Amino acid sequence: MPLAKALDDLQAFLGERLSTAKPDLDAHGLSESYFAPAPPDAVAWPETTEEVSRILQICARHGVPVTGYGAGTSLEAQAQALQGGVTVDFARMNRVLTLRPADMDVTVQPGVTREALNEELRATGLFFPVDPGANATIGGMAMTRASGTTTVRYGTMRDNVMGFEAVLADGRVIRTGSRARKTAAGYDLTALLVGSEGTLALVTEITLRLHGIPESISAGICAFPDMASAVNAVMDTIQMGIPLARIEFVCRETARAFNAYAGSNMAALPHLLVEFHGSPESVAQDAARFAEIVADHGGSEFQWSSNTEDRTALWAMRHNGYYAILASRPGARAIVTDICVPISQLARAVEETQADIAASGIPGPILGHVGDGNFHAILLIDPENTDDLDRAKALSTGMAERALALGGTCTGEHGVGIGKKAFMTAEHGEAWSIMGDLKIALDPGNILNPGKLVPGN
Amino acid sequence: MPLAKALDDLQAFLGERLSTAKPDLDAHGLSESYFAPAPPDAVAWPETTEEVSRILQICARHGVPVTGYGAGTSLEAQAQALQGGVTVDFARMNRVLTLRPADMDVTVQPGVTREALNEELRATGLFFPVDPGANATIGGMAMTRASGTTTVRYGTMRDNVMGFEAVLADGRVIRTGSRARKTAAGYDLTALLVGSEGTLALVTEITLRLHGIPESISAGICAFPDMASAVNAVMDTIQMGIPLARIEFVCRETARAFNAYAGSNMAALPHLLVEFHGSPESVAQDAARFAEIVADHGGSEFQWSSNTEDRTALWAMRHNGYYAILASRPGARAIVTDICVPISQLARAVEETQADIAASGIPGPILGHVGDGNFHAILLIDPENTDDLDRAKALSTGMAERALALGGTCTGEHGVGIGKKAFMTAEHGEAWSIMGDLKIALDPGNILNPGKLVPGN
Repeated sequence: MPLAKALDDLQAFLGERLSTAKPDLDAHGLSESYFAPAPPDAVAWPETTEEVSRILQICARHGVPVTGYGAGTSLEAQAQALQGGVTVDFARMNRVLTLRPADMDVTVQPGVTREALNEELRATGLFFPVDPGANATIGGMAMTRASGTTTVRYGTMRDNVMGFEAVLADGRVIRTGSRARKTAAGYDLTALLVGSEGTLALVTEITLRLHGIPESISAGICAFPDMASAVNAVMDTIQMGIPLARIEFVCRETARAFNAYAGSNMAALPHLLVEFHGSPESVAQDAARFAEIVADHGGSEFQWSSNTEDRTALWAMRHNGYYAILASRPGARAIVTDICVPISQLARAVEETQADIAASGIPGPILGHVGDGNFHAILLIDPENTDDLDRAKALSTGMAERALALGGTCTGEHGVGIGKKAFMTAEHGEAWSIMGDLKIALDPGNILNPGKLVPGN
Repeated sequence: MPLAKALDDLQAFLGERLSTAKPDLDAHGLSESYFAPAPPDAVAWPETTEEVSRILQICARHGVPVTGYGAGTSLEAQAQALQGGVTVDFARMNRVLTLRPADMDVTVQPGVTREALNEELRATGLFFPVDPGANATIGGMAMTRASGTTTVRYGTMRDNVMGFEAVLADGRVIRTGSRARKTAAGYDLTALLVGSEGTLALVTEITLRLHGIPESISAGICAFPDMASAVNAVMDTIQMGIPLARIEFVCRETARAFNAYAGSNMAALPHLLVEFHGSPESVAQDAARFAEIVADHGGSEFQWSSNTEDRTALWAMRHNGYYAILASRPGARAIVTDICVPISQLARAVEETQADIAASGIPGPILGHVGDGNFHAILLIDPENTDDLDRAKALSTGMAERALALGGTCTGEHGVGIGKKAFMTAEHGEAWSIMGDLKIALDPGNILNPGKLVPGN
């Protein structure tokens, strides 16, 4: 039994930090979304790079699958152990290793969460801006190429990871990237690993760009008569070079859900939630110029504030959007899907999606990162009703196909995992097989997160 | 003779667009730098993706090397045909294919130059910001991961290429990336190809992000008593979040060369040349805040203007820096090298480099992109004196080794080619062999630009 032998070898140096107890296996087999549980055969909690390397050497020798695990917040089953094997939980590798304020960068272990990192940065005047909503680990965020509300200003994980220490399938440890702000020294292995969902390597150190906490922040909200007006206002704002730090769209159903959940008093209309970063003068000027654009597009008065409490309340509402929507259909489970399209196609993509959702009979509020052309549908299904799940899956498929038809992508930020594999040929054609060739080059035994992202199993 | 057979097959469909005439071969065998000529056996001028695909199918079948060629402005011999074979010159694939102003993106063929592209964009209010100095082709810039004076604000080619159409070594045509502003749909093949120097594929279409021409631009210049003061001023500016669009450093020798070449009247001191983009109010405010920081660090009065003529004169001086420096030693040839370090190490890297250059006896003015930690030494050698070349190479080696010791990279923007291969093991360790594995996975016959970037020949 190769598995039993591998677990013996692992136990020998991990001791109690290797578990085959059912509660541990079950906890690591769950998904945030609708996928069936897929527990591993064992969970390992390494504390050093060298231990991760030994785990991979042993599992490679015995052909045992290895799946990385951060906070378990991924949405396309990236952390589930589809073929069993060993799940490597990075909970004990959660330190901030080296902070370099003068260079505005930091090296961390993969298990640190974004909130814990920002807590440690608090005294430095610096912050790490990528914010996918969930308090994910930095390792998980790097591996899924996470983004979120601040991407329009600060970019995705692609733009904010400078380098990795990574352990390959055979246990070799490599370093990628550079602490220089740019490099032309060879293939961009860092970018190849970002978004690779643990299928090419397990990362054990991550060097991140940091950003200065803005001197001043203004944030506000406004309503529009329809989606197209809101999107056109955003396009004008971007084209005029007004530097948006956040620009979020919520549909009228989401506004109603906010009202019911948080006692707000929003009109039952599409809204934009907006934030500007800069000096006190520049954020005031940005807000004033944005207000003019909003008015030009028939929007309501742009109510903004640079007061911290007002701003916190605004974004707490947005961040609780998922729970507000979930509460709007008691007993429901949510199927969350995301697509991303060129911004000129966003109004059309949202409107056609809304029409499909309305026809399906399933409640499905929409919200998203309008500055990136990225939006989510939160499809509320009755977990007792298999018809609901089928209809939700059909809606999700329709969204992905529409995104591709409009020149976009089947996922802007949730990743592929198993949920979006069905669309990879349509999106990438022959290039998907090239991804498979790269996978084979780096992991010939296919032990790293098998069954995800690339062709085959 | 596989080569003769391949050339016959190519001639059959390229006709006069395949040349084996010596002047054509010689012209394509040159380098902008000190490398010996390395002409191909033939030059092809394809006009379509399908022709590029046929060229690669034929060359793959016969094992004939293929080297892509844009404007021939690369600095590490990337476009030289080290092992002969066929050079594919993209001069006839130089069209802007699709411009999408609403999405602020454009799809071009690889042979369009950045100046020609910006000329075509002029009426749209948009521009393509990456500016390496030379009027390189977009294809060449993508393949070397070019950057330049505007990188501190707009990023490198890594940040501005959204996707490719690319022809693989076996002639298969793939598409990478997405027109969506972000995607999490699989491995980042686009980033893998950017900076790959034609060793993984020939690109036949490139989709680029565009940016709005700023409403207002302010630019100015100031002197500092020493390099460290200038760098500290830049670090404070970045940390305060003042959005620099350009920030260039020139050393006192460069200032003297400007004076002699262009009749300027700069003090013989290190200088910063700076630019801000934004609204009329914001660029004035940025300049005023920057002036305060300069004064805090002992710099001279920051003389700035938002007048177009003043600004053009300032950047013409900077862009002519290479020629001004070359003119400062009549009859000299220039060896140009570049390194990039974390910005906290920049003053040290420059000062130690200056000491080495002074000790060598070779004139070597320094200038660079200080906001990125990237600088160039322009080493002026007597072409008749082989000792000079040896000393210049030793200086270049010392710079690369120092960059690595300080946590930086052996090249920030010129790339690897053959000139920086010697430092790849020191910079990447085992990761360099991984680059070799990826090369083999995509080009098993090693026909694409053999001898460059990756291990082996």
